[in-house]
Amino acid sequence: MTGAADRERPSGGLSRRRFFGLAGAGAGGVLAAGVAGGAIGRATAADAPVTDPAGATGAVPFPGPHQAGIVTPAQDRLHFVAFDVITERRDELVGMLKAWTDAARRMTAGQDAGEVGAVAGGQYAVPDDTGEALGLPPSGLTLTIGFGPTLFTTADGTDRFGLAARRPAPLAELPAFPGDALDPARSGGDLCVQACADDPQVAVHAIRNLCRLGAGTVGVRWSQLGFGRTSSTSSAQATPRNLFGFKDGTGNLKSENGAALDRFLWVGEQDPGADWLAGGSYLVTRRIRMRIEPWDTATLADQEQTIGRTKGSGAPLGQAAEFDPVDFTVTAGTQPAIPRNSHVFLAHPANAGTAILRRGYSFVDGSDGLGRLDAGLFFIAYQRDPGTGFVQVQRNLRSDAMNEYIQHTSSAVFACPPGVTGPGDWWGRALFS
Amino acid sequence: MTGAADRERPSGGLSRRRFFGLAGAGAGGVLAAGVAGGAIGRATAADAPVTDPAGATGAVPFPGPHQAGIVTPAQDRLHFVAFDVITERRDELVGMLKAWTDAARRMTAGQDAGEVGAVAGGQYAVPDDTGEALGLPPSGLTLTIGFGPTLFTTADGTDRFGLAARRPAPLAELPAFPGDALDPARSGGDLCVQACADDPQVAVHAIRNLCRLGAGTVGVRWSQLGFGRTSSTSSAQATPRNLFGFKDGTGNLKSENGAALDRFLWVGEQDPGADWLAGGSYLVTRRIRMRIEPWDTATLADQEQTIGRTKGSGAPLGQAAEFDPVDFTVTAGTQPAIPRNSHVFLAHPANAGTAILRRGYSFVDGSDGLGRLDAGLFFIAYQRDPGTGFVQVQRNLRSDAMNEYIQHTSSAVFACPPGVTGPGDWWGRALFS
Repeated sequence: MTGAADRERPSGGLSRRRFFGLAGAGAGGVLAAGVAGGAIGRATAADAPVTDPAGATGAVPFPGPHQAGIVTPAQDRLHFVAFDVITERRDELVGMLKAWTDAARRMTAGQDAGEVGAVAGGQYAVPDDTGEALGLPPSGLTLTIGFGPTLFTTADGTDRFGLAARRPAPLAELPAFPGDALDPARSGGDLCVQACADDPQVAVHAIRNLCRLGAGTVGVRWSQLGFGRTSSTSSAQATPRNLFGFKDGTGNLKSENGAALDRFLWVGEQDPGADWLAGGSYLVTRRIRMRIEPWDTATLADQEQTIGRTKGSGAPLGQAAEFDPVDFTVTAGTQPAIPRNSHVFLAHPANAGTAILRRGYSFVDGSDGLGRLDAGLFFIAYQRDPGTGFVQVQRNLRSDAMNEYIQHTSSAVFACPPGVTGPGDWWGRALFS
Repeated sequence: MTGAADRERPSGGLSRRRFFGLAGAGAGGVLAAGVAGGAIGRATAADAPVTDPAGATGAVPFPGPHQAGIVTPAQDRLHFVAFDVITERRDELVGMLKAWTDAARRMTAGQDAGEVGAVAGGQYAVPDDTGEALGLPPSGLTLTIGFGPTLFTTADGTDRFGLAARRPAPLAELPAFPGDALDPARSGGDLCVQACADDPQVAVHAIRNLCRLGAGTVGVRWSQLGFGRTSSTSSAQATPRNLFGFKDGTGNLKSENGAALDRFLWVGEQDPGADWLAGGSYLVTRRIRMRIEPWDTATLADQEQTIGRTKGSGAPLGQAAEFDPVDFTVTAGTQPAIPRNSHVFLAHPANAGTAILRRGYSFVDGSDGLGRLDAGLFFIAYQRDPGTGFVQVQRNLRSDAMNEYIQHTSSAVFACPPGVTGPGDWWGRALFS
């Protein structure tokens, strides 16, 4: 989005670029003369974020009853990271979560993670921001944190941080599914952060600065970039296409579905772990490799029968337009228009008996060593309970015709606490208090 | 760029989306009724591309004396792929290059690679486009082809396709450099295609469809996505920041430097291989892992002395603004303001004695298994001769202070022919004729 950002940057307000442009020239002179004390990119009260919630360059509010990045209209780009906690000290972990929250507050507002040149240390201090997002607007950045089952209890039963009794029962490793080919090195994790933004450099910058702040406390377990959102989470968004070339997520849970969100998405006051998790949600990630070569040699009819929609308009088979209601009673000749083993039929809330909020991204991670692109869908789903959410949907997909063309290669589950509130609040406060 | 594209799509003209929106609903009805013959996304004379050369959504002309994607103002996103030719038949290779050229012509104009639903075969035909770019504008897509040394002669000396005598001497494997840690599995290649666009989905779609068209003739050897351009190739572009947080490529060769381009960039009429390569250029790629963790613990002064510029404005040390002339005579106290082992000093054309056109992209490829992000710069340089271009620059960087923070992990060199001309021309025609 850099190009668009350049064109659309508001002339009012102090974006990172504007502030830096002003401060930078002066600092350059200072440094060349060998005088310490230049502060670069320092945020002050005057360094107000650009607010343009409707556009691709604006800021999404960080505090709130729910974390941003769940029902927030899905941004275009993703950087997702799972961490191992490498310290044994609870106070270090808590200190990092507080520092992360401060940095997240600043970065989602379009500010630096900290001062690039600290006032006290000047040029002889280590910068508190790595600088690659200087000049870029907030770009709709959201940062969403989750806690994995292993943060509470390790596989051998160790209560690492005194949290074992706080683990809600639904926060457990997912069951095995037929066809899984999971790589343990890129599955699981003690913590995760989902960074979504309309500019990939802004998402990468945010994750990189959290990694920097977490040095010695956490290590990167695995990380995934996504270049194109494959779901809409708001009725105002156009439905994008996945790497099968089909519109995906037309029937997704969306931010406008208030009652359904309370039923299917948000952890309620009576749910397990509600003392720290009410208003939060469970996050399931699955890296799904798409076998695009066999898909690309399938006929259009095969593809459409597999999905259950037309490739052109995205209309459910038997209907004329994308948002026409899915009607499983419509026939084509003597057969149902939407095959009973199609993805749309099996994943439909009416047949799965549940609903999840999908928020996935397409990826291409180089090649696979066998002459093919290593491409697919990084599936992200939020739900009130993984057992009645993703697990139930996935079990219903046992006979999905699409299974011929996909393979799940990583899996993880996290509990995402509610949003932070006032200035003193921090990620995980209710859990660690 | 999807968001911006949505907002900025011109109301006139028939973009992929517009055309498809019209055709799609009808096709949906046709398919549901089980009648063959619906053509989806078919390009016709009326399916004119959107032309908006100044914006991020428009089309860059495909034919021309030079290939697009070299001096074209660098787009925001990259998908680069290197192929192994797996056929032994020259006619198959030539057939594929012709098919690629046709598809490239269409895709850079914002059309499909071919018909999604072929008229003849209808829904029972395999689509000639994979569909994931339906609805997206041209997005400045450029596709640039290159031929590697191994296409001409394999390591054991085999003249695979009768091209051995056509190999210009400068098209040879690069020499080894101190500190190289090259992975052979993602180095080299018989062919390459560089796809640049302002929407990553458009770049990925283009590469994926070339892979599809090349099935059985080529296999993907390695592939690299880049999310953020790190160089400007036009004076009209703002200088972006690399993952060290610095502005990079301020002194790059740019499209406006006509005489310098002829001297340093384009293969001339008297150069080796001019019979098929005049007007082309040599492409060197280096995947450069950045050691961002030690960099992030270096002081601002260390960082600026390493680069030779201020982090804020990007001004050369000793100057006030980014585009102030680099002046190596300016001192700070008793020392040169720009250290003699800084990157700017050693890479500067005045000291390297040559110039190259850089066109690199930042990447993050997950994590490295050691708790760190696998991040860096995918360096791309074009030049008239690799020996007097990249090799000379790189040798001059032996004492570069930046070497402490980087490691080259892949390397490749290709000869990129001139642009195609009329409708019957194709990639490599002069080489294979």
